[in-house]
Amino acid sequence: MTTHEQHRVPVDTSAKPDILNRIAYNEGHLNGVRRMIEEDQYCVDALKQTYAVRRAIEKMEAMILEQHLQGCVVHGIKEGREDAVIGELIDLYELAGR
Amino acid sequence: MTTHEQHRVPVDTSAKPDILNRIAYNEGHLNGVRRMIEEDQYCVDALKQTYAVRRAIEKMEAMILEQHLQGCVVHGIKEGREDAVIGELIDLYELAGR
Amino acid sequence: MTTHEQHRVPVDTSAKPDILNRIAYNEGHLNGVRRMIEEDQYCVDALKQTYAVRRAIEKMEAMILEQHLQGCVVHGIKEGREDAVIGELIDLYELAGR
Amino acid sequence: MTTHEQHRVPVDTSAKPDILNRIAYNEGHLNGVRRMIEEDQYCVDALKQTYAVRRAIEKMEAMILEQHLQGCVVHGIKEGREDAVIGELIDLYELAGR
Repeated sequence: MTTHEQHRVPVDTSAKPDILNRIAYNEGHLNGVRRMIEEDQYCVDALKQTYAVRRAIEKMEAMILEQHLQGCVVHGIKEGREDAVIGELIDLYELAGR
Repeated sequence: MTTHEQHRVPVDTSAKPDILNRIAYNEGHLNGVRRMIEEDQYCVDALKQTYAVRRAIEKMEAMILEQHLQGCVVHGIKEGREDAVIGELIDLYELAGR
Repeated sequence: MTTHEQHRVPVDTSAKPDILNRIAYNEGHLNGVRRMIEEDQYCVDALKQTYAVRRAIEKMEAMILEQHLQGCVVHGIKEGREDAVIGELIDLYELAGR
Repeated sequence: MTTHEQHRVPVDTSAKPDILNRIAYNEGHLNGVRRMIEEDQYCVDALKQTYAVRRAIEKMEAMILEQHLQGCVVHGIKEGREDAVIGELIDLYELAGR
């Protein structure tokens, strides 16, 4: 997709299973919220669950970002591609804050 | 579960299908992120997708909260249960901000 | 300014001094960050301070909102102005999340 | 304060006046909110102003972070201090999300 992909450093395989487990857990959690809404459970209880899902996604994002910083960012800067790598980080930061 | 549930106002049925569609969409979106990680796609692209999922969940939360305010909160206060209803809103607000 | 202002319930005077103290503290804190930037102190240390200011402002907002919910919102709904009062809360919620 | 400070890259002087102007503006804005509270203005109007202050502080943080990434982070990694520099970024990220 992007030109940076060609320079992509393989994700540290030790963290990948943990990240995948977290995504699967979040999918299951969202599925549970769907059932709460279907069964007309109390909206406040449903909201508390969606807040928990969002927090869990944020935790997962922190793990992916950490990998990215330690891998692609460090390698990219050492290879002299700092403008591309830092520009991408700044775009991400803006996207994260909406 | 909570004592407030007995006073629960049924969710406006016109919004329920929309909320359910959004949850199903978010589950599918998360599933797509999982495949991105499994296939070692670029971490920045995966992060952009999880940010989009979080924003979509926040939009859904706004819809659920709107229902809650217009339904349970208004009814609860008119029935004289303002302390319980407002206390619950304040707890939610704190939870949302973590 | 707004038509709701005419229905405004006076802020509970017991919380007002605490809110004012917090604002004054935050002004002083921001002033400290300004000096850090002027003196070319380490940007990471400056960022940690602005994060602390933002958290303190959020805490203050929670106090103001709590007053608003317990005062204006409860009174407004009991007086039959629920559409105006709830609409305003929903607008605030959207503004808070940007 | 920190050992990293010795390696600190001077802040790009072209952005410094803009950052300082923004802090001064935010101090003045907070001062305006304080007067709103002192004069018992409508709490919803005060909240809208504190939200605006927070957004302005976030914009300023983005500018400081951008400087940090383009300066200290790039230089630190090129000098082989990637563990310290990346560790610090991860700590900042966690702090920012509270």
